[in-house]
Amino acid sequence: MATESELIAALSKVFAASDPKLIVGIGDDGAVISASPKNLVAATDMAVEGVHFKRDWSSLHDIGAKLTAANLADIYAMGGTPKYLLVSAGLSKDFGIPEIEELANGIKSEADLVGAAIVGGDLSSAEKLVISITAFGEVEKPITRAGAKVGDVVIISGLSGKSAAGLYQLQNGIADSPYIRAHKKPDLNYKLAANFQSVNSMCDVSDGLLSELNHIASASKVGIELDVELIKVIPGFDELAQIAGSNILQLVWQWVLAGGEDHVFVATTSSQIPVGAYAIGKVVAGDKVTVPGIAELPTNGFRHF
Amino acid sequence: MATESELIAALSKVFAASDPKLIVGIGDDGAVISASPKNLVAATDMAVEGVHFKRDWSSLHDIGAKLTAANLADIYAMGGTPKYLLVSAGLSKDFGIPEIEELANGIKSEADLVGAAIVGGDLSSAEKLVISITAFGEVEKPITRAGAKVGDVVIISGLSGKSAAGLYQLQNGIADSPYIRAHKKPDLNYKLAANFQSVNSMCDVSDGLLSELNHIASASKVGIELDVELIKVIPGFDELAQIAGSNILQLVWQWVLAGGEDHVFVATTSSQIPVGAYAIGKVVAGDKVTVPGIAELPTNGFRHF
Repeated sequence: MATESELIAALSKVFAASDPKLIVGIGDDGAVISASPKNLVAATDMAVEGVHFKRDWSSLHDIGAKLTAANLADIYAMGGTPKYLLVSAGLSKDFGIPEIEELANGIKSEADLVGAAIVGGDLSSAEKLVISITAFGEVEKPITRAGAKVGDVVIISGLSGKSAAGLYQLQNGIADSPYIRAHKKPDLNYKLAANFQSVNSMCDVSDGLLSELNHIASASKVGIELDVELIKVIPGFDELAQIAGSNILQLVWQWVLAGGEDHVFVATTSSQIPVGAYAIGKVVAGDKVTVPGIAELPTNGFRHF
Repeated sequence: MATESELIAALSKVFAASDPKLIVGIGDDGAVISASPKNLVAATDMAVEGVHFKRDWSSLHDIGAKLTAANLADIYAMGGTPKYLLVSAGLSKDFGIPEIEELANGIKSEADLVGAAIVGGDLSSAEKLVISITAFGEVEKPITRAGAKVGDVVIISGLSGKSAAGLYQLQNGIADSPYIRAHKKPDLNYKLAANFQSVNSMCDVSDGLLSELNHIASASKVGIELDVELIKVIPGFDELAQIAGSNILQLVWQWVLAGGEDHVFVATTSSQIPVGAYAIGKVVAGDKVTVPGIAELPTNGFRHF
């Protein structure tokens, strides 16, 4: 294993950032960023080898990029813009400079998509790889889970369930497919998320669509009714049905309604639906999330417990 | 194991904070904090079971408090004031509500010492307990490692090496002592650290005094010369010598110069020495840290690698 200072030197190179607002970056006790007139938004996510990823299945690049995406999604889901990341990692014994560089390049490749910079972190050893990322950014008007209003349209930035379908393929011996790639590293539509600014409530789908909608329903004290016909016409649904084959009923709705880690953005709005988003239901009086037409709802979201 | 929502409910109770600047706290995708006119300072630290702590030796309360202390120390070491914490944890299978509450209470007890609030986090499962904390705060004039000037006095907020002496006692079958307690959960002098505001450079001693001073020397392009006679008269030195017994030369200086995790604050200053701090040397021309009178310097700081 490389020494800590060798690893930090390699990381400083990968993460080199030129940002006039960054007063102190990597290499001191903490990072310092110029005061902003906007509110601060911050979120954190952890990924543990064997729980969130398998190194047999995913490259270090994908592992780094995927956790970064989850973290950036949280900031967008608050109506914010991510600016800076802190990365902590517990590295297993096989980590040398090439491994840390690959992981770091994965993190940076995703952060680059939104112009966020990695400004600090912490390294230690660990039996199995564990990574924790904290993103922070700016937000003018936070969008919470509590703002849904009866009469809102429920919208989504894309079809959920692709990552779950990819995991299913991996578990069934398929080596590569667009869904497997989506499982290893989802493609987030950050631009569309940034256009969700006039919505009343918002989440990213980390743990499954129903699970997130239940959070919105509970925090907003409303009910939500999804429309299966609207969901079926979202691009990609037919392909999921093909993968599921004869198991269509159980599997496709399991993926779409309860599959996690796609990080599509789901929101409720009383304004115009942003171009590129899909209506999938409505906010109603009540306290339940219902999907008329689906006989048996998946009972649980995707959880790392 | 308890469900994620049960754990989050328990955590929300322990971490309940009433802060008019906290716009969105625990329970949404991210936390939102009102804009501040001061610069933002942020730092992160990770602790891994078996690497940073042993649950046979330390209570969950101590484990939580110790990592929090390390994190808060980083913010003070930048000249900042910590305000908010995000906590990620990978929990082993034995974690139920009582365990998460004990860990959370440890984190909160330390954060309360400085008036910082826990505003969010992430939970997952893990084979072994792993915790990552990110602290945020405010800083007007950051104090980096790069500001030491030839002629500065090197000062320290207290004796380093107590945690290392405690670890030595633990490893030698002693069950309890003030040093063992300092190893399990160091007592940081946050008030004194806050009075280091006119210093030219500053670190907290995470990895050992020599290691931190080498960082300052290297970043500031200076040399540092420590004075063993000044160190010997810091309260507590004689007690360390008693613990070391006949091994005094190797052990005491190993603990004081290379023992980590005390999180005492070391700085260089051209102003008046803050009341309660101790002078231990001076900044000189050059690029090395020297300790005249110590025949063989410990070559390495305390590292979790």
